[in-house]
Amino acid sequence: MTIRYPKGVHPKASGEVKKRTAKKYSPKISTANRGMAFEKAINESNQYYIDHDRAVITKRPTPINIVKVDYSKGAKITQAYFETQSTTDYNGVYKGRYLDFEAKSTVSRTSFPLSNIPKQQIDHLERVLAHGGIAFFLIQCVSLNETYLLPASYVVSFWKERPRESIPFDELKKNGYLVKEGYSPRYDYLPLVDEVFLK
Amino acid sequence: MTIRYPKGVHPKASGEVKKRTAKKYSPKISTANRGMAFEKAINESNQYYIDHDRAVITKRPTPINIVKVDYSKGAKITQAYFETQSTTDYNGVYKGRYLDFEAKSTVSRTSFPLSNIPKQQIDHLERVLAHGGIAFFLIQCVSLNETYLLPASYVVSFWKERPRESIPFDELKKNGYLVKEGYSPRYDYLPLVDEVFLK
Repeated sequence: MTIRYPKGVHPKASGEVKKRTAKKYSPKISTANRGMAFEKAINESNQYYIDHDRAVITKRPTPINIVKVDYSKGAKITQAYFETQSTTDYNGVYKGRYLDFEAKSTVSRTSFPLSNIPKQQIDHLERVLAHGGIAFFLIQCVSLNETYLLPASYVVSFWKERPRESIPFDELKKNGYLVKEGYSPRYDYLPLVDEVFLK
Repeated sequence: MTIRYPKGVHPKASGEVKKRTAKKYSPKISTANRGMAFEKAINESNQYYIDHDRAVITKRPTPINIVKVDYSKGAKITQAYFETQSTTDYNGVYKGRYLDFEAKSTVSRTSFPLSNIPKQQIDHLERVLAHGGIAFFLIQCVSLNETYLLPASYVVSFWKERPRESIPFDELKKNGYLVKEGYSPRYDYLPLVDEVFLK
C-alpha cells in the first residue's frame, strides 16, 4: 500500500516525519524538563516526609550570581546568571543524622554517565562521608523505568578510578537499591536509608 | 575658648557637624552591609572548618523566583525576585550530627527583636529539633561588640510565648554562649557546639 500524502505536505519534506524505531526510547519531554519532573517528584516526597514527621530534608536553592538589581519598584533582579552548585541539591536531618544526596536522571539505556557529576560534588560527598554523614545518589533510569539509591561511597570510589566513565546498569543494580515508587510519597527512599545506613 | 570657624563654612550650617554622643553606637555601614559583613565572616569561618576537616557547613543560596531568562546569549536571567528562605541560612554535618543555624545581626542597644525571625523559620527549627538535629542562632550584637550562640530551643519557646517581642540582652547572655572571635576562624563556634549540645 502506498501512503498518499496531501499535496505539498510530505512529512519528510516538512521535517515532521517520526522516527518509529527510536520512539520507544525517546522521552516525550526534553532533558531539562525530565530532570525538572524528577526534581519535582523528589521535592514532593520530601514535603510528604516533613508533613508526616519523618524527616526534614530540603532542596538547596540554585545559586544565582546577581549582577544588577533595580530598586525603583521593589527589588527586581534584572541581570543574573546561574552558578554551579558546589554541594549537592538535597540535605537535611533524619533520626538525628545528617543526610545528603544528589538526584540525577539519565536516558541512557546502558549506564549512568559520571560526566553528570562535577568534581566539586565528589569532593563535597567525600567530606560528608568523612564527617559521618549519610550520603547517596538517587538515580532515575528512564529507559528502565526504575530509580536506584546508590551509596555515595561507591560513586566516589568509582569516580576516583574511572572519572570519565559511566557506571553500567548491572553495576548500578548490584551496588544500588531499587527505590519503591508510589503515589505519595512518589519516591519512598527513607526505608532504604534505614536498611543501607542505619542497620 | 571660642572656636573660630573659617568664614562661610560653619560646620552646623553646612551639615558637617558630628553628633559625638551618638557616634559610639552608630554603625559606620548600613544595616544591609553590616548583615552582609557578618554573613561573609560566618562563610569564611565555615570555609576554615572545611579546609581544616572540622565540619561541612554551608550557606544555602538565597532562593530566587526566576521569571524571565534570555537564552540568546548563554542563559541570562533578565527578570527575577528574591524569595524568603523557608528554612535557615546554614546547615551541615558535624561529628555525624545534623547542624542547622541562622545568623542574625542587630544594632539594638538593649535586645534582639524577634521580628527578625519569620514564623516559617521557627517552624523549621522546631522540626529540626524534633528530629534530633542541633539547632541554634548566632546573634551579633553590634552595640556590645559581641556575638552569642543561642540554642534554638530557647528561641522557639520564647517566640511561642511572646512572638512580637524582643529577647533582652541580659536574657540572651543568661541563655546564650559568647562566641570566641579571632582572625581565623573569625567566629569559632564549634567548641561551643561541643559544650552545649554534645557533652
